[in-house]
Amino acid sequence: MQLLQDTIQNIQGADMNSMDQARKRIDALCKPPGSLGKLESLAVQLSGITGQLYPMVDKKVMIVCAADHGVCEEGITTNPQDVTVFQTLNFPKGGTGVCAIAGITNAKVVTVDVGVKEDIPLDAGVIIHKIKHGTDNMAQGPAMSREEAIQSIEVGIHVATDEITKGANLLGTGEMGIGNTTPSTAILAALTGYDPIEITGFGAGVGQGGIAHKAAVIEKAITLNKPNPNDIIDVLAKVGGLEIGAMAGIMLAAASHRKPVIIDGFISTIAALIAYQIEPKVKDFIIPSHASEEPGAKIAASLLGVEPMLHMNMRLGEGSGAALAFPLLDAACSMMKNMVTLEEAMNLLTK
Amino acid sequence: MQLLQDTIQNIQGADMNSMDQARKRIDALCKPPGSLGKLESLAVQLSGITGQLYPMVDKKVMIVCAADHGVCEEGITTNPQDVTVFQTLNFPKGGTGVCAIAGITNAKVVTVDVGVKEDIPLDAGVIIHKIKHGTDNMAQGPAMSREEAIQSIEVGIHVATDEITKGANLLGTGEMGIGNTTPSTAILAALTGYDPIEITGFGAGVGQGGIAHKAAVIEKAITLNKPNPNDIIDVLAKVGGLEIGAMAGIMLAAASHRKPVIIDGFISTIAALIAYQIEPKVKDFIIPSHASEEPGAKIAASLLGVEPMLHMNMRLGEGSGAALAFPLLDAACSMMKNMVTLEEAMNLLTK
Repeated sequence: MQLLQDTIQNIQGADMNSMDQARKRIDALCKPPGSLGKLESLAVQLSGITGQLYPMVDKKVMIVCAADHGVCEEGITTNPQDVTVFQTLNFPKGGTGVCAIAGITNAKVVTVDVGVKEDIPLDAGVIIHKIKHGTDNMAQGPAMSREEAIQSIEVGIHVATDEITKGANLLGTGEMGIGNTTPSTAILAALTGYDPIEITGFGAGVGQGGIAHKAAVIEKAITLNKPNPNDIIDVLAKVGGLEIGAMAGIMLAAASHRKPVIIDGFISTIAALIAYQIEPKVKDFIIPSHASEEPGAKIAASLLGVEPMLHMNMRLGEGSGAALAFPLLDAACSMMKNMVTLEEAMNLLTK
Repeated sequence: MQLLQDTIQNIQGADMNSMDQARKRIDALCKPPGSLGKLESLAVQLSGITGQLYPMVDKKVMIVCAADHGVCEEGITTNPQDVTVFQTLNFPKGGTGVCAIAGITNAKVVTVDVGVKEDIPLDAGVIIHKIKHGTDNMAQGPAMSREEAIQSIEVGIHVATDEITKGANLLGTGEMGIGNTTPSTAILAALTGYDPIEITGFGAGVGQGGIAHKAAVIEKAITLNKPNPNDIIDVLAKVGGLEIGAMAGIMLAAASHRKPVIIDGFISTIAALIAYQIEPKVKDFIIPSHASEEPGAKIAASLLGVEPMLHMNMRLGEGSGAALAFPLLDAACSMMKNMVTLEEAMNLLTK
C-alpha cells in the first residue's frame, strides 16, 4: 500500500512550459502548420512528459504481465487455459508476436508472472512476482481480495520502476492471460453501467454459448460481487485480473518517473482507465497505439480521451500493437531533432 | 514510349504459390489464426511480390518527384509556387519532414526534378530529368502534350529501375509540387465522373475563393480539355502533372522488377490509379500507408482496393506517410523471420 501511495503522490501533470516551447518549434518547422498531425501532438506530449524539447525514446521496454483467470471455469473462451503458461515461458525465448514486433526497434521485452496458475521455473527468464495461482472465479465470488488487488498494482510499479532505473525511457504495456477480455469487459461494465451484452466481444475466441453466455457470466459476476464504481480498487478486486492491476501499476510508475507509456489494445486500455481513476494526471503520460477489434475498446479509449493511430485489425494482445507504435514515437522524436525550421532551411540554401 | 512498353510487358501478377506457402506458415505461428491482421496480409503480399517466404525490406528508398503546376495561375492555393523549388533543394539537405521520418528506418531519400519551374543547380543533389518548366495551365489548355505525359512516366521508371539495380528492395513514393491536389482531383473527376465540388479538398491551403473556386477551376479544365476517361495517358496529359506521371512510373517499374512500393496520400494514390489503368497487375505490388485528409483520397483508395493502416491526420505530402509505413513492413518481415510456430515453440520449451 505504501508503494502505491508514494507513487501516486509523486505524479505531477505535464510540463506546460515545455509543451509551449515544443509547439513553437514545431510551428516554425519547414512545413504547413499542423500538417504532420498526430506526430506533432506526440512530440508536444513527449516534451510535456520529459521537460525536453528534443526528447529521446531510444531505450524502449515492453513489459508483458501474465496471469490466469478463475472465470475460465465458466467456459468463456475456446482457448485452453494453459496457453497462458505456455506463452509466458515463450516470451523469454524471443519467438512470440510481441517479440518479433518489438525487435524492429530493438525494444527489450520483459515478462512478469503476476499470477499464472502454474509455477514458473526460476530459470525461465521470467520475473516472478506471483500473487496467487490465478484469480478466483468471479462468477462465484470476488476474483481477489482488496489486498491482492493493491499488490497487483504494486507489482507493476515495482517492475516498471526497476526498468526505468536501468535506463528505460519508453515503456509499453502488454499482457498474457487466457480469458482476460472477460474481466476487462466486467470492469468496463461496472464503471460505466453498460449492459455487458452491449460491450462483450469475441476475445481471442469465445467459448460455448458464444458472446451471450460470456455476457451473462459478466452480468452474474457484477450482480453477485456488487463492485463499487466509485472505488476502483474494489472493482479491480471483485471483477478484475492480476495482470490488469499490474499494467495499471506500470502506468502509474511511468507517470511518477515522467516517462511515456504506450497502451496496447482493449485490456491495457482498461488498465489505463484504472490508473486514471486512481490518479487522473496519469493521462498526460499515456500514449495510444492500435485500434483493437473488441467492442469495448472504442468506449474505453473514448473515456480515456485517446485515439488509436494504427488500424491493423490486430487482436493478438501481448503488447503487439503497442510495440508496433514504438516507431511512431521514433518518428515524432526525429521530427523534433532532424527537421529544420523554415529559417534554418533558408540559411542552409544561401550558404 | 519503348521503355514504358517494355516495362508493362514485364509485369506479371503476384506469385500465388509463394503466397499460399506464406499463409500456411503464418497460420502455424504461435498465435490465434488471423490475430496479427494486416501484418499477416502484408507478409503474404510480400511473399507474392518477391517469391520469398522470408522477404527482406532492408534497403528502402523514398523517391520524391518534384514538379510545378501552371494551374497555380488560377489562385487555387495559398502557398507561393516557389515553395516547390525551395523544398526540392531542401530534400538533399536532409531537414525536411520526409527525411526526418525516413531516417527512423535508415531509408534513403532520392529527389527527382521532373518539371520544377526554376532550373535546379547540377550540384544540388537532385536527379534532374526536367521535362518542362512546370505544366501549362490546364484551365487554359492541356497541362502537357501526350509525349510529355509518357516521358513523365518514363522518368519514374528510369529512376526507380536505377535504385532497384543499386539494391533497393522497398520503394516509397513522394511528391513536391505546389498546387498538385488540383490536378489530382481533376484526374479523379475525369476518371470517375464525380462532380469536382464533391471531391475537392483543402490541399495544403486553398486559395482565395476557397474550395468552390478550386472546384470550378477543375470543372473548367475538364470541360475545356475533354480528357478521355478510357485513355489514361490522355487524362494525365490534359489535367495531370509531371510528378504524378513519374510516381505512376515508379510503381510500374517496381511491379516489373517485383519490388513492393508504398503509396503515400492523395496524390500518390491518384498516381497508383494511373498505373493501375495502364496495367492492372501493378496492384499486387502496391502497399497503402496513411489515411490522407483529402476527401478524394478515400474514393481513390477504395477504387484501388487498398485500406490505409495509419491514421495520423497527416497532410504534408513529400512521401511522409509512406515513410512512416516503412516500419510496418519491417514488422511483417520480422513476424515471418522471427516468430516461431506452435510446434517450434513446444520443441524449444521441452529442450
